[in-house]
Amino acid sequence: MGKQMVEIDLDCMTAVKTAVPEQYEMLGGRGLTSTIVACGTDPRIHPLNPKNRFVLAPGLLAGSVLSSANRLSAGAKSPLTGTIKESNSGGVVGYKLARLGVKAVSITGRAKQSPTGIRIHKNGVSFEDLSDLRGLGTYESALLLRERYGKKTGLLLAGPAGENGLSAACLCLTDPEGEPCRNFGRGGLGAVLGSKGVKAVIVDDEGATPSMNDETRSLIKRFAAALREHPVTGEKFAKYGTVMTLLNVNGLGGLPTRNFSAGSFEHAEKIGADSLYDTIKSRGGRFKHGCMPGCVIQCSNKYVDPSGKPVVGSLDYETVCLLGSNIGLGDLDQIAELNRMCNDIGIDTIETGVALGVLAEAGVMAFGDFERARTLIAEVGTGTPLGRVLGCGASVCGCAYAVERVPAVKGQGMAAYDPRVIKGMGLTYAMSTIGADHTAGNAIVLAVDHSDPNAQLIPVRNLNIETMVMDTLGLCLFTARVSLDRTEFIEEAVFLLCGRTIRFEELKQRAKIILALERGFNRKAGISRINDRLPSFMRSEPLPPNNAVFDVSERDHDRFYDWEGETAPETPE
Amino acid sequence: MGKQMVEIDLDCMTAVKTAVPEQYEMLGGRGLTSTIVACGTDPRIHPLNPKNRFVLAPGLLAGSVLSSANRLSAGAKSPLTGTIKESNSGGVVGYKLARLGVKAVSITGRAKQSPTGIRIHKNGVSFEDLSDLRGLGTYESALLLRERYGKKTGLLLAGPAGENGLSAACLCLTDPEGEPCRNFGRGGLGAVLGSKGVKAVIVDDEGATPSMNDETRSLIKRFAAALREHPVTGEKFAKYGTVMTLLNVNGLGGLPTRNFSAGSFEHAEKIGADSLYDTIKSRGGRFKHGCMPGCVIQCSNKYVDPSGKPVVGSLDYETVCLLGSNIGLGDLDQIAELNRMCNDIGIDTIETGVALGVLAEAGVMAFGDFERARTLIAEVGTGTPLGRVLGCGASVCGCAYAVERVPAVKGQGMAAYDPRVIKGMGLTYAMSTIGADHTAGNAIVLAVDHSDPNAQLIPVRNLNIETMVMDTLGLCLFTARVSLDRTEFIEEAVFLLCGRTIRFEELKQRAKIILALERGFNRKAGISRINDRLPSFMRSEPLPPNNAVFDVSERDHDRFYDWEGETAPETPE
Repeated sequence: MGKQMVEIDLDCMTAVKTAVPEQYEMLGGRGLTSTIVACGTDPRIHPLNPKNRFVLAPGLLAGSVLSSANRLSAGAKSPLTGTIKESNSGGVVGYKLARLGVKAVSITGRAKQSPTGIRIHKNGVSFEDLSDLRGLGTYESALLLRERYGKKTGLLLAGPAGENGLSAACLCLTDPEGEPCRNFGRGGLGAVLGSKGVKAVIVDDEGATPSMNDETRSLIKRFAAALREHPVTGEKFAKYGTVMTLLNVNGLGGLPTRNFSAGSFEHAEKIGADSLYDTIKSRGGRFKHGCMPGCVIQCSNKYVDPSGKPVVGSLDYETVCLLGSNIGLGDLDQIAELNRMCNDIGIDTIETGVALGVLAEAGVMAFGDFERARTLIAEVGTGTPLGRVLGCGASVCGCAYAVERVPAVKGQGMAAYDPRVIKGMGLTYAMSTIGADHTAGNAIVLAVDHSDPNAQLIPVRNLNIETMVMDTLGLCLFTARVSLDRTEFIEEAVFLLCGRTIRFEELKQRAKIILALERGFNRKAGISRINDRLPSFMRSEPLPPNNAVFDVSERDHDRFYDWEGETAPETPE
Repeated sequence: MGKQMVEIDLDCMTAVKTAVPEQYEMLGGRGLTSTIVACGTDPRIHPLNPKNRFVLAPGLLAGSVLSSANRLSAGAKSPLTGTIKESNSGGVVGYKLARLGVKAVSITGRAKQSPTGIRIHKNGVSFEDLSDLRGLGTYESALLLRERYGKKTGLLLAGPAGENGLSAACLCLTDPEGEPCRNFGRGGLGAVLGSKGVKAVIVDDEGATPSMNDETRSLIKRFAAALREHPVTGEKFAKYGTVMTLLNVNGLGGLPTRNFSAGSFEHAEKIGADSLYDTIKSRGGRFKHGCMPGCVIQCSNKYVDPSGKPVVGSLDYETVCLLGSNIGLGDLDQIAELNRMCNDIGIDTIETGVALGVLAEAGVMAFGDFERARTLIAEVGTGTPLGRVLGCGASVCGCAYAVERVPAVKGQGMAAYDPRVIKGMGLTYAMSTIGADHTAGNAIVLAVDHSDPNAQLIPVRNLNIETMVMDTLGLCLFTARVSLDRTEFIEEAVFLLCGRTIRFEELKQRAKIILALERGFNRKAGISRINDRLPSFMRSEPLPPNNAVFDVSERDHDRFYDWEGETAPETPE
């Protein structure tokens, strides 16, 4: 394929390009970041140690305009969870890296002069002095860097939170308009890159000219058509975006509200999909916006204020819930402003919302107090003691303020589905190798009775495996209704873009091996069976209005990785 | 024996006295607290949950004036370490509880009206409204409570840190003069009692008349004489107290200095034993002070200011190092003042010193800046965000301020011996069931080459077992030079005070069972083999002036509890 690995050592300020080892050829995205981290990082390392390897890898299919197939993964040992971590996102950086023939970028060491920038272009890698960007928000950083390096560069940015090493710090990726609004949100990867003294990865694919044959062009067209024909991927996503989930989850009684103390929110309508649609439409904002080149689903939006001025793109479900109902806010303008602040400071919106919920329970803010929430998030950026506590996420907030009800697993706050009602999501939160992360197996999409504790194990396990396939391919999960229903699309794409015939079932077998590798890393990092559990209060505290508790059996947790004996490979001790 | 268990349920405000179950009869102190906690507490419970059982148990030998045999243990699941925890201390409360025939006090639930007091006296248990003491320091609380309930009552007190649920909160016990200066320092047990709404346990042994026979009187005299005859227990401890260790450890190059970045301190002489002795003597303070009735070792002191006004009793080695050299302070007056503040706020001096070292490394204070240290400790009491971070201990400070060099194991800061030089202490820190706690096996006392990594396993393991024996008996470790060298004293004491013939070797077998019980609890709480390790930097960063690293083998860690297969009992899942 002519692709290459880029190995960056910031201690020596060197960047070496090497050929892709054969065993990595059919890996990409999470499959590749997790393999490199699991095989090349001491699981006991402190996450902010320079030797903690930070890895970027575009999905296996990335680099063409195949719809929704340009996601980029980042991996490292997480400062938030203490586990291996992968986070993936849209935006333009994955596409550009793949077009440059970059299979993976691996970064170790710590730059003596920081903040520094790593610029990747067709002639190689250069290091850029970004001292003038120290402490700058990601929005201003993106403006400056696009002026300096060209409007067509893709950016990966750490904000002040990452520079300060806060364990809920995210990384922001630019979208096609250059807005730093697509995030490696979870797991504190911003702190890992920040601890290396890196403020930005600047990717310029000018001059890259990958070739494409007619069969590939045909596939791209047919896949796009199939996505357009499906009512969800062809219409609903483009109109409502991910927020279309909100009233559904609220109706089920599983919408995290006021620190997961209720499952329905009295202002849900005000922050639901129709309200979002009407608000954006009436103000002249954007819908049907694609976060990455070639995407025909276009679930992204650009939220604007009453005067039509851009606030944040894209306002998405998880954020609307966790910075909304979970802290008692029922106003989209307020939520959008907090979202933009989080992006700018470089802090995960999900973790921040969960953490604010915990602080509200402690009385540090009142639920529904927008001004106080705004002040608290601003403090993350300025690095006050309270801002640092908030910036370390929900579990540290719980510790500092003696709150028992912390909805987190392995130190990471839960996403926008209360597991007492969406029980399959509880199983994903508990068993995922990367903390309470809905993206590891987004059980809300399953056609199961979400309230039946005994109906979750098999479909959720399968979903976690299929998700690993998708995250390795770099294929957006929102294509699932087409791509996972008609896996011949995936097989054809792998054949045309990677030159190999591999059955989908074989991809799943490989996904299981990656999951086992991640599990092996975690075991060596000190994660035990007991860490694969939800916090106790989820089992004892009934959630209004349904008064459900989490009751998936211990046995189903213990059987989740039942295949481990067969496939678990040995990783270095 | 006519002894009784007291079971307090604060949800119902009931106290029930029951007979001692047969299997508890030959247990006391740590042996009893750990058995009750391991068998009666869900290992996965949140430590601040009302169901987390807090247990007090005087040592098996407590209640007479047998020298140094009146230590009291407290146990619970720790908010600092997430493990089972036992902490023991001198002071008068253990003696008084034992004289009242109380074998153990077990406390669950949460008082609706808080803070509340639990008063234990010869007629039973009563609950006292202590609302007027909310937020008061332990010194003022002790004054008020001794006025209210009599000068002869013994007190166990939570300070503001415990009331605020901070995970490094300690509990203070009064000494014979009523000063709240003997502490259950480690593991955050103050937060556990605080979370139950309990500010004080008030013990009044007025009217208790335990009998004693002539043989016991003879033993007491002979044991006291033996202690007096030994040069260390008869003289050095009384003159210099525990600080006599300081120049020795400094000479070895293992005195924690400036956040464990050096092993010798340029101002060590100024805070060493001679300096302490001269200062106290010239000002008219006290030496040769016993912290509990009957003690003839009398290692305790009363430190006074230049005008002779009492500051704190007793200024001890761990505190002098961690609030001294570890934060760059070489002035006993300053250290004494910080010590008193910690006692008053109810926060562990060791954890506070380690945490301040971490904050100093982060630049939150300068090493050696006494005024800043005083301000920071004061903030723990007032509950500012930074005070809460500090009050949660070294690991949370490291997280909030992105410091990798956190000298802690299982979330608990190390005591005053750098494990790179005192390698046996490193093994205790790593393997102890209760976090990095020197008292679990204080390897500095061993006659081994502390620098030899291969010489530690057998003696340190044995010391951990013998320490469990001592902590079960309630016998001060400082008697070891007599009691462990001539174990017939211990056997005779057990026979005379408990009515059973038990060989010392049998006591050690029983101690191993308790250790296995504690380990079992921890496993079920999610503690894995990997958590039984020092932080990585101890193995890679050479410690000046000897440039030693910690190099006890992984294998010696894994073999530490080699007997587990034989003795591990089943505890309820």
